[in-house]
Amino acid sequence: MIHPTAHVSPESVLADDVTVGPFTVIHAGVELGPGTTVGSHCVLGEPGPGGPQPLSIGAGATIRSHCVLYAGSTFAERLETGHHATIREGVQAGTNLRVGTHADLQGDCRIGEYVRCHSSVFVAKGSRLGDFAWLFPRVVLTDDPRPPSDELQAPVIEEYAVLGAGAVILPGRVVGAGAVVAAGSVVAVDVPAGALSVGVPARVSRSAAEIRMGDGSPAYPWRTRFHRGYPQDVIDRRLDA
Amino acid sequence: MIHPTAHVSPESVLADDVTVGPFTVIHAGVELGPGTTVGSHCVLGEPGPGGPQPLSIGAGATIRSHCVLYAGSTFAERLETGHHATIREGVQAGTNLRVGTHADLQGDCRIGEYVRCHSSVFVAKGSRLGDFAWLFPRVVLTDDPRPPSDELQAPVIEEYAVLGAGAVILPGRVVGAGAVVAAGSVVAVDVPAGALSVGVPARVSRSAAEIRMGDGSPAYPWRTRFHRGYPQDVIDRRLDA
Amino acid sequence: MIHPTAHVSPESVLADDVTVGPFTVIHAGVELGPGTTVGSHCVLGEPGPGGPQPLSIGAGATIRSHCVLYAGSTFAERLETGHHATIREGVQAGTNLRVGTHADLQGDCRIGEYVRCHSSVFVAKGSRLGDFAWLFPRVVLTDDPRPPSDELQAPVIEEYAVLGAGAVILPGRVVGAGAVVAAGSVVAVDVPAGALSVGVPARVSRSAAEIRMGDGSPAYPWRTRFHRGYPQDVIDRRLDA
Repeated sequence: MIHPTAHVSPESVLADDVTVGPFTVIHAGVELGPGTTVGSHCVLGEPGPGGPQPLSIGAGATIRSHCVLYAGSTFAERLETGHHATIREGVQAGTNLRVGTHADLQGDCRIGEYVRCHSSVFVAKGSRLGDFAWLFPRVVLTDDPRPPSDELQAPVIEEYAVLGAGAVILPGRVVGAGAVVAAGSVVAVDVPAGALSVGVPARVSRSAAEIRMGDGSPAYPWRTRFHRGYPQDVIDRRLDA
Repeated sequence: MIHPTAHVSPESVLADDVTVGPFTVIHAGVELGPGTTVGSHCVLGEPGPGGPQPLSIGAGATIRSHCVLYAGSTFAERLETGHHATIREGVQAGTNLRVGTHADLQGDCRIGEYVRCHSSVFVAKGSRLGDFAWLFPRVVLTDDPRPPSDELQAPVIEEYAVLGAGAVILPGRVVGAGAVVAAGSVVAVDVPAGALSVGVPARVSRSAAEIRMGDGSPAYPWRTRFHRGYPQDVIDRRLDA
Repeated sequence: MIHPTAHVSPESVLADDVTVGPFTVIHAGVELGPGTTVGSHCVLGEPGPGGPQPLSIGAGATIRSHCVLYAGSTFAERLETGHHATIREGVQAGTNLRVGTHADLQGDCRIGEYVRCHSSVFVAKGSRLGDFAWLFPRVVLTDDPRPPSDELQAPVIEEYAVLGAGAVILPGRVVGAGAVVAAGSVVAVDVPAGALSVGVPARVSRSAAEIRMGDGSPAYPWRTRFHRGYPQDVIDRRLDA
């Protein structure tokens, strides 16, 4: 159902069962897959510096109110956003991306499957986020080693890496697969795969595998441990990773 | 006055003198007390995972533009929000709560009276905020000790505690009554009542009572010292606390 | 072109070629210069505590969707904002100010020319930002030395200063001309002109002039080095500064 107050371009392509909320604007070139819900006060297909381009959003998406998604990106199935999120042009994202409330993705990012960006995450232009990477609230990925230079280097966050709340990742840094960055840390050197990095500036403290639950059992690698509501087939696939 | 462009459900209950701005959406089950003003582009009563539920907002509220308040919460008198704030379901809040611009309350919180959450504060699901607690800009309350675990523990901020700008409170930590957390600190251990905690990770530096004004007089406990525009009867009540 | 769904007060003054997007509200007393574009879902001229006042926005402005600009401010030519930004009353800003997505300027600020506030920057009431100052994502300028006191002291950021992502500037601190504050730093003492300040709390590490590019050439002072898309006449003027 398209709310009568929404402005939907006749040059967009919406599956039959798409829902669009009040006061939402959908520009030309937007494609919304079946089962998608778009909240109120959103803007989809905002023209970027490259002008009008397609914005392709796969089946089963949930886009909450007040979000702005630029033209020129492609999202696979089941994109889910919080409120007031913005996603600039040139993003290529795999299935089941979640982008939290007030998050700000600056465009040209390559994003794997089941990536989670929590509230108010800031992702610099050109960043790469591997499958199942988790960015907790207020994480910042930066891209300018000598600001305000013209030589930008975005970070790379590898698969299953976890960035704790408020962590700042400096330009060009690589956070390895399954690594954990503690909340509030500032990452100035690469974090090896599977390491726990802590502090300002962050230093490798130990292997993430040494982190224990209250009962003494190992907490990491988290893909063998935590479910967080993933479907069983996804959990099974993770365990094989 | 309800702006003619607003969409107000006939199943909501608005006091006679409520003002609703342009392009605002009010869902079924919302109750707004007398003297309440709702700005433009808001969404009140957004259905959460529990489906349609009441959202009760007491008398004299001011809700500024672009806010999203979910169904399933109760706010006492004189709620005041900045712009673009979001408040999820299950919040129980006392009188005179202020929630700043771009703040994000994740729901199921218990909030006392006269609590102040400044701009861009992030409050994890299930957090508890005591009477007159102050969270300054960009404070983050986290809830996951081993992210992305399934075992969440929200922080507790006791009455009259002050969290400086950008402070990060780690899961399950308790900031005691009247304690002060310095700006930019990361709180990994409980902060005793009346203590000043500073640093990354934060350590108790001294008693907050030792902090002096420029003239040498004690600044804390702040409830005996700072007015910040509270009405006289509230100041009198604080002094007795 | 004014979108037919926009609400534009007959007591505002819009140049002939102004563009206003859907669902935007423009209050009485707003003046928009020629060549200005206002996106959708904005509020311009929101009345502040001082009641209705003029809001003057110079020629060539671009104000993106979901922004809120209060009455009682004056912006020179070519203001540019991201999405969801808020700017409170009493701001006096020079030409070419950029205010990023989710940024929050608290009012009564004095802002020079070509100032850049990136995404989610928080600028305390009364702050002063010199010409060509750069505030990168999530920088916080605070104003209360003993929160929640009544004695506010806003920071001063001098011309060509650079504040890295996530930096917190404490109340009343001065960041000198051409100084660089590293990402994630908490600035508790004044930063001398031309210095690099790093850490929590931040300490002067060395002269910014010692920071080198990959090829060994000096990166700073950045006004002699980086273009970042400024027009040639602005670059020439900077070199003379």
